[in-house]
Order: sequence, then C-alpha cells, then structure tokens
Amino acid sequence: MLTYKAPIADIKFLFEDVFGYYKHYEKFPEFEEATPDLVDAIFQECAKFSENELLPMNQSADKEGCKFDNGTVTTPKGFKEAYQQYVDGGWQSLSHGIEYGGQGLPPSLGMVKSEMMGTANWSWAMYPGLSHGAMNTIDVHGTKDQKELYLTKLTEGTWTGTMCLTEPQCGTDLGQVKTKAVPNGDGTYAISGTKIFISAGEHDLAENIIHIVLARLPDAPKGTRGISLFIVPKMDVEQDGSIIGGNHVTCGSIEDKMGIKGSATAVLNFDNAKGVLIGPENKGLECMFTFMNTARVGTALQGVCAAELSYQNALLYAKERLSMRSLSGAKQPEKVADPIIVHPDVRKMLLTQKAFAEGGRAMIYYVSKLVDTIETSKDEKERKRADYRLGFITPILKAFLTEVGSESANLGVQVFGGHGYIKEWGMEQIVRDCRISTLYEGTTGIQALDLLGRKILLSRGKSLKSFTMEILSYCREKSMISSNPHKRQMNKFIWPLSKAVANWQQYSVRLAIKAKKDRDMVGSASVDYLMYSGYITMAYFWAQMAQTAYEKLAGDVENRDFYRAKIKTAEFYFDRILPRIKSHAATMMADPKSLMQLDEDLLSFL
Amino acid sequence: MLTYKAPIADIKFLFEDVFGYYKHYEKFPEFEEATPDLVDAIFQECAKFSENELLPMNQSADKEGCKFDNGTVTTPKGFKEAYQQYVDGGWQSLSHGIEYGGQGLPPSLGMVKSEMMGTANWSWAMYPGLSHGAMNTIDVHGTKDQKELYLTKLTEGTWTGTMCLTEPQCGTDLGQVKTKAVPNGDGTYAISGTKIFISAGEHDLAENIIHIVLARLPDAPKGTRGISLFIVPKMDVEQDGSIIGGNHVTCGSIEDKMGIKGSATAVLNFDNAKGVLIGPENKGLECMFTFMNTARVGTALQGVCAAELSYQNALLYAKERLSMRSLSGAKQPEKVADPIIVHPDVRKMLLTQKAFAEGGRAMIYYVSKLVDTIETSKDEKERKRADYRLGFITPILKAFLTEVGSESANLGVQVFGGHGYIKEWGMEQIVRDCRISTLYEGTTGIQALDLLGRKILLSRGKSLKSFTMEILSYCREKSMISSNPHKRQMNKFIWPLSKAVANWQQYSVRLAIKAKKDRDMVGSASVDYLMYSGYITMAYFWAQMAQTAYEKLAGDVENRDFYRAKIKTAEFYFDRILPRIKSHAATMMADPKSLMQLDEDLLSFL
Repeated sequence: MLTYKAPIADIKFLFEDVFGYYKHYEKFPEFEEATPDLVDAIFQECAKFSENELLPMNQSADKEGCKFDNGTVTTPKGFKEAYQQYVDGGWQSLSHGIEYGGQGLPPSLGMVKSEMMGTANWSWAMYPGLSHGAMNTIDVHGTKDQKELYLTKLTEGTWTGTMCLTEPQCGTDLGQVKTKAVPNGDGTYAISGTKIFISAGEHDLAENIIHIVLARLPDAPKGTRGISLFIVPKMDVEQDGSIIGGNHVTCGSIEDKMGIKGSATAVLNFDNAKGVLIGPENKGLECMFTFMNTARVGTALQGVCAAELSYQNALLYAKERLSMRSLSGAKQPEKVADPIIVHPDVRKMLLTQKAFAEGGRAMIYYVSKLVDTIETSKDEKERKRADYRLGFITPILKAFLTEVGSESANLGVQVFGGHGYIKEWGMEQIVRDCRISTLYEGTTGIQALDLLGRKILLSRGKSLKSFTMEILSYCREKSMISSNPHKRQMNKFIWPLSKAVANWQQYSVRLAIKAKKDRDMVGSASVDYLMYSGYITMAYFWAQMAQTAYEKLAGDVENRDFYRAKIKTAEFYFDRILPRIKSHAATMMADPKSLMQLDEDLLSFL
Repeated sequence: MLTYKAPIADIKFLFEDVFGYYKHYEKFPEFEEATPDLVDAIFQECAKFSENELLPMNQSADKEGCKFDNGTVTTPKGFKEAYQQYVDGGWQSLSHGIEYGGQGLPPSLGMVKSEMMGTANWSWAMYPGLSHGAMNTIDVHGTKDQKELYLTKLTEGTWTGTMCLTEPQCGTDLGQVKTKAVPNGDGTYAISGTKIFISAGEHDLAENIIHIVLARLPDAPKGTRGISLFIVPKMDVEQDGSIIGGNHVTCGSIEDKMGIKGSATAVLNFDNAKGVLIGPENKGLECMFTFMNTARVGTALQGVCAAELSYQNALLYAKERLSMRSLSGAKQPEKVADPIIVHPDVRKMLLTQKAFAEGGRAMIYYVSKLVDTIETSKDEKERKRADYRLGFITPILKAFLTEVGSESANLGVQVFGGHGYIKEWGMEQIVRDCRISTLYEGTTGIQALDLLGRKILLSRGKSLKSFTMEILSYCREKSMISSNPHKRQMNKFIWPLSKAVANWQQYSVRLAIKAKKDRDMVGSASVDYLMYSGYITMAYFWAQMAQTAYEKLAGDVENRDFYRAKIKTAEFYFDRILPRIKSHAATMMADPKSLMQLDEDLLSFL
C-alpha cells in the first residue's frame, strides 16, 4: 500500500535553482551532453521506472525475502526482470566512463538516479548499488587488462560486484582480517577465508559476481598494514569475459535480518578461489579508502530515501484519517471528525520528516557537486580542495542523515498510530529497512570518531575552519543589503546560523584542548558533536533554500506556493529542529568521567 | 540467543531501600501476608519462571508467530504450557481480591511480577496482562452476579479477558464507535460490530475469553456520551460458569505486525453476540477511564522491560566483542583488540540504557505505591490524593518511558553493530516488539495532550504544583545539613534538579498564558513538554536513588560497589541525559505558527 512519486519539483529546485548544476556541468567538457533537455528526460524516465517497476515490488520483496538453497540465492519475484530492464535501459552505465562502455554522464546524475530508485525500493537498489563500489575500485586501482575485462561487464551490468571486507571476528577493525591470499606462481592468488555480511554477495540477477576482497599475503605485516585487495570473480573467466567455470567461492548462507529482506546478505566461503591483486601489495586498506567517501554518501542517501518515502505516505494518511476535532475549532464540521493533519503535533511530525527529507537531499546534492569535480576536474588544486571538503563532510552526512532518516521513518509510523505497526501499510517496513543505515559502512559511532578524531583534530581544525568560513562568509554576504536584496527576510535565518557556527568553532577549540589532556574526551564527545554539526550543516542548506526561494519570488515565477512552502519549511527547521543543538552542546562538553568512572564489573550485579 | 536474569538486587534496592515498601505494606491490614520472606520467595519464583520458561520462547515465538486458521488462533509453541504453569502457580490470582479466589497481595507485587515476565517475553505476558484490564473493569463496575461468574474464572486464569475499544474507523476518537447493542428483552443485549487490534482477542490458552466491549444502545446520544460497556464472552455460559456453546463472536483474522508476534492481535466480528451491560448506560467511556491509568502504567512498563533486556544483552556483548584499541592506550594488550566496552561512546550507549531501565523502574515503583493506596486505603482523602497524583504522572510514564525504552532498544542494536541487525541475536526484535508501546493505549501525542491539556491546564496547574512542590521540598530537605548528612555529596544533584523544577513551573505558566491566546499552543508544545517533564521526573528519582545509596554507604553494608554504581549512574544521568531538557524547552516554547502556517495543500507538490 506504499505509494511513491518522485519529487521532481523538489529535485529540480535544488538542481537548477539552489546549486546551479547546469552552470557547473558547463565547466567540464566531458559533461557537454548533460543538457537541461537530457537531464529532464532522465529524471522523467527514472521516475517512471522507480514508480512503476520498483515500488510495486517493495513490500512484496519484504514479505518474500531471498531464498537460499544449497549455495544458490533466489531474489524476490520481479527483481530479476527489473534488473534486466535496468540494464537494458542503460541505467547501470549512466555515469560511468565511456572507455568501458559507460555514458560518461556526471556522477551527480547517478546520485539522483540512486535516490529515486532507492526511495522506491532500497533492497532492490542495493544490487546495482554495490556494483558501483566494485567499479570505482577497479577504475582507480585496476590495470588496463583488469579494467577491460571487469569494468566492461560491470558497466554493461552483465555482471555485478561486491565489497568483501567483514569477517566474523571483525567489521570495523579490519586489522583483524584473516582471509589469506597465497601466490599461485602464475600471477594469480589462491584466496581462502570466510567473509560475512556481503551485500549482493550471491543472487540470480547476473551471470557473474565480481568480489573485491580484503586478504593477507603470506608474509604480510600484522594489522592494517598487511592487507591487500584482490579481485575474485564468482565464476572463473577468460580475458574476453567468457565464463570458464566455478571458482571455489560458495555462499554458505544468507542472513535473516530485521529489514532490507530483498537484499541478500551473504556468508561467502573462499576456498582457494583464484584471484588477482588489485593495487599495491599491503596497501589494500588505503585503496579501499579512496572511494570510502562516495560509498558512505551512498549510504547517507538511505536516510533521505526513508524520510521521503515515509513522509509521502504519512502525509496522505494524515489528510484522510479522521480523528478528533482541532482544539482551535472544527475544521471540517461536515465530517464526523477532522483529518488528523489539523493537529499541531501531527504537523510537527510531518514537517520534521519534510525538513529532513528536503534538507538531507540538499546536503547530498551539495556533495554530488564535489564528487563531479573530484572525478572530472583537470585542475589538481580544485580536485584536492573538493576532496578535502568531501572528506570532512562525509561522516556528517553518513551518520546524521541516517540517524534523522530513522527518526523520520519512526515518525511516519507514529502518524499512522496503531496502523503504522501493521505490515500491510508498509510504514513499519521503512523503519526496519532504514535501521541498517546507521550500522553498515561504519556505524554512527565510527563516523563520529572519523569526524572529530581524524578529520578535525588531526588537521588541527583546518577542515572545520574551511567549512565554517564558507558558511560565515555566506552569512555575511546575505546579511548585507548591498549584496542581498532579501536581507531583511533572511535575517531570521542568518543570525541564528551565524551564532551557531561561531559556537561550533569555539566548542571545537575547547574540545581540542580538553582532548589533549584526556584522550577519552574524543570518544566521549564524538556522537553528540557529530549530531550537533549535522543540525548546523543542515541549517546552512535550509538558509540557502530560503534565499533561493525569496529570489524566485522576487521574479515572475509560476507556482509561487512552491517557493513559499520552502521558506516556511526553513522557518520550521530553525524554530523546531535547530534548537536541538543546545542539548548536544551541553552533553558533548561534559566530562568523560561520567562515562569512564564506572568499572565494567560494576555495570551490572546479576 | 537473548539472555535475561531478573535484576533482583536492583528491584530490592528500590523496594526496600528507596521506597520502603514493607513499611508501606504495614499501613494496610490487608497486606499483612506480604512479609519480607514471602515477597522474597515470590521474587525468586517469579525470576525462575521468567528466566527458565518465558525467556526461551521469546525468540522462537517471534519467528513462529501466531497461526490463524478459519477463526481459530494457535499461539506459538510452548505458550499454552507456560500459561498453564502460570495458572497452576497461582500467578494470575496474585494481587486480586480474595472474595473471588485471589491471594489479595498488593498490586505493587503484581507489577514486579509483570516486569519480570514482561522482560522475559512481552508477547506471552500480554495474554495474562490483558485479563487484568477486564478484571479491573468487572471488579469496579460489575454486579455481584457478574463478579461471581466472571471474576472467579478470570482470577483462576481459566478464562482470559480483553478490552474491545478500537474499530476500523476509530481508535483514539472513540466517539466514532459504531458497534451496536440491542436489548434482547431479557436483560441481555445483542452486540453487533467489528472491533480491531484486539490483543489476546483469540487464542488457544484458555477455554473462554471475556470481552469488554464498547458499543451503542439504540437510542444513545451521538459521540462519546452515547457509549456503553458490555461483557461479551466468546462462549456463552451459565451462571455457574459451565459453557453452553458459541456466542457469535468470531475472529476474522489476526494482524501481521512489526513485532510482538507471539501476541495475537485480532479482528473480532460480533454478530448478535449475547452480552450484558456493565456499569450505567451511556457511561461506558467513564467506566473505561476508571482504570485507564493502571492500563497505561502497564504499557509504560514495556519501555522499562525493553531497556532492561536490551541493556543486559548489549553489556555482555560489549565485554566480549574485541574491536580497535582504546584511544587512551590498549586496555587488554594480550588480546588482538580491546573489548568494545573500553570505548567511551559504547559506554555512553550502555549507560543510557542502564539509566533508563533503572530510572524507569523507579518511576514505575513510585506509581505502584500510589496504586496500592488507591485500591486499598480506607481513607478517602488519601485515596483521592493518590489518584490525583496517579492521574498527573500516568501520561508522563506512559509516553516518556516508552519513548526512552525504544531509544534504549535501538541503542542495544547499535552496540552490536551489524550483528544487531541479524535476527539470531534478538536485539532487533526488542526494537520491533517495543515499537508498539508508543502507539497503543494512546500514542505519545495523545498522552502529551492528556498531560498538558487535561491534567495541567484544566486543573489550572494544581496537579503540576502539587508534584513540583513535592520535589522542591525534597530538594530543600536534602540540601540542609541538619536534615541530610550527605548534603555535600548531594549538591550536584539537588541544585540542577531544583533549577529544572523551577523552570518547569515557570514554563508551564508561560505556556498556559500563551495557550489562552492561541489554542494551537497546546498541541504544538505538548510532546516536547511531556518529554521535558519526563526527564525532570526521572532526575528526581535518580536523586533519590543516589541519596539512598549514600545513606547505605554511610552504614555497614556489604556489596558497597552496588551503591557506588547507583551514585555514578545518577551522575551520568545528570551529566548526559538531563541536559536534553534544554532543547525541549526551546522547541516547546516556539510559536505554533511554524507548525500551522503551511496550508495542507502546500505540504507537497507531487
């Protein structure tokens, strides 16, 4: 019973008006085909495919799940056909390089595609999504032969890919990886070990699956410095891509999970499987990290997808469900009761979902522009600048957007009341599907350590300074009548934003000082600090959306209500969401003692 | 793989040391049997039954669910046998009146029983739990004949009971109830209509099910003033309890839900079923509301159960799972990595669960004392005072404890990382099971309106004043060296608590003034206001637990670490949880305009 319409007006507002994507594309000759007409057509086609093909399988796939039988996995009904349609439609190749058969369109377009498809059916979208990770690895680190063989097939979509990192004893702490790679003497390696939690690790959508596997060479140093990266296909292949036969990679089982049940999460056993090294020996982790940011932004997207899908459905329900009367007087006296949308708290829940969905989308599109630049610009300085910013903002996006995505999904259930708990409506499924997003690709806690520990403290605050200066200079510009005719209306956003950003800087300095004296300060403050940073970052994008809306309204636009709604949603965000930073500020600055003083044996007396 | 040990030390700390339950029991001659020895034995037996019989079926029941076949429901494997053991052990009759076969022990003991059983297996515990609701209704409003017939069987546990309120078109807004009751002319009524979401509405645990049904008499006024209450047994019975035959109550289906899958949620079709009126005509809703508070406290308990179960399992995992090194230096250098409990953020999650489980339990036990008094005291004034306080604090308990219970369950998943998402561990099930608790028995939004709109504003703040004065006078007493030798250590709790309570009073007055000008202020502020009130209320109980712990430590007690741990957990609560009131204070005082100004047609442009 879930419905979904791709929010093309919202997408185009960001794409065209807020972020000026067409101007951005014009900077790169590679993107000359990405004209407004083509982009428009892609949006329309993608919306159609998502709404008509992917959405209808969303709930049925949850019910059916993936079937495991003696090493083979059958995906839910319709998945295979939809994947074939996706491949035939050229969707997999959309934003991949033309050398290996891609259409060479901007990565940012690929992100919009992932958003629509992921909102309509996240479980399904994970199969092609995982391929992107494998493709990026091969693209950056592979040899010419490896690219010709694997990238061509992956770009077509004839094969799919995976990332095989996690083992039973370790997920975050990859230094503990045990999988072994023994040279065969012919340039190939015999890979042996067990990998778990491998998304799209086994399925029936494609004739081959290309696993990117972390493993250790026989003489490798201990820990993270002794990990190398290998390409290990499920089926052994010739250089021309023809399949020779099985390659000793077997699926031992698939996980029975809380959600994303249409997505097969495999245990893979490698038993002297033939693989080839990709990238330098013992540098596997660095190679992995080269595109960790994009993988994490891809996961951040899940939060936006959950918020959008849950919002659309909760809104429809809130307009239809009749219960009680408005406290300020009956609104639809002719009916037995008012629709629940008249109640302020229901509106608060809906607006929270809306603010997170639209604000999160803005954050993703901001980052997509950086990714375009990183992957395409010929100017090294510009590329590095974009990469530096991406590295800073990625943990915020990943953790913050998945946390507020989960909150939004839960609010959607809450709007439905008891009906939200019933499977038929689909609302509880969004909660279950989205729940993985704060766990995989690095938990919220890991993202928070990455942000505060690595990105901020290790750079002595440089990365933070660069981003906060961008916001403050935006605020300065928008607060002057000479540079902003909408200054007066924008004050209500600019002042609280400036103040919050100034505090962000100050708290960060104080945290850095405290962290020098007490190393536990970092872990103790990190998650609150990340959420704090997230709310301020999202406020920056809501301010920009409001500014753009004022500019549009000053002109002769149709659909004036659309822009008014943006401004009012920004007001909601600043009034009702941004104040959450107060509590996070208080708790992140608290002494680590309150966390560390209780000996672990005193945590329970059972 | 879930484990559970009843936290008897924690329970007894509250029972004996913080709330002085034995002294409290001595006030009532009815409770003379509730001696420390007996209470102890009950705790031990209840723990055994919960740990050994109920817990092992927790996960299997989730997997199996209830089976529906042509009107009959089969509960998961083991449920029936456990229920029979429960009945044979006299557990159902524990705290019910001796006139109809009960043991006449205090309701507060029944609450401890519900806590242990509900933590071990909430789904199972719902069957006997629902009976209590029906029993209370019959006890208060039934005729002597009704009590003799129904209460006797329900107290034995031979029959179970339900509450049939919700219909497809209404849950909260019971004025929309359509089920009809037509007099048969012989003092009975023919009941016809459809009820949905009926927990324990059909099952195989008992030979009969006694439905308490809201329905309308033919000439009843519209809305809530025309609803009457009926007893409608599933099987028609003689006055001596012998079963005559079916009574035209059929189960149309059971719901496929997110969680509590072992608990059957039935659609019941009444088709001229024979029922008898209970309580006065057209006063059904008032009759229901006489014990609404206890039903809601019973639901609040689910939050505590979820927090406790999730905490116990997350703690074990955090001590065993090895990942990364502590940032302040390796803690277990002999192992490949440190256990994750060394990481401050993992500790923050565990301590949050612990603070909510133990703080929530304290709130429940505080209320249990009120319930004992209401149901037993001969002093009408005392009874009324207790009832007034219960009415005030119930919405806080119901909404706040279920919200933080859900948060705790989610934190438990987070501690497990990706493994938390896998069914086998049971952690995600706690999230799913607990998710219903903020929805049924009145959503969080409904509780918040009850608190701010009915309980506070309608009483012109009297109920709030009475509770806040209790806290402030506690603070005054504990802040004077003459009345508190631990004054110095308690300052860190007493000052922030006093300040928070003073603010609570002031904000409430300001809200009342604003609400007079703008009725939407109530709904707009209500949920933030409720959570704000909840955090302060829990702080009061953490202060009391700390005070008690200081007192015990001043004496010659064994297990000193136990009391030290209580104090440190209180410190954690005040440092890391209580500051959440800052954000709630800011958002609850915000102008309703930011919620109401967007016309509903402008909430989406799809």
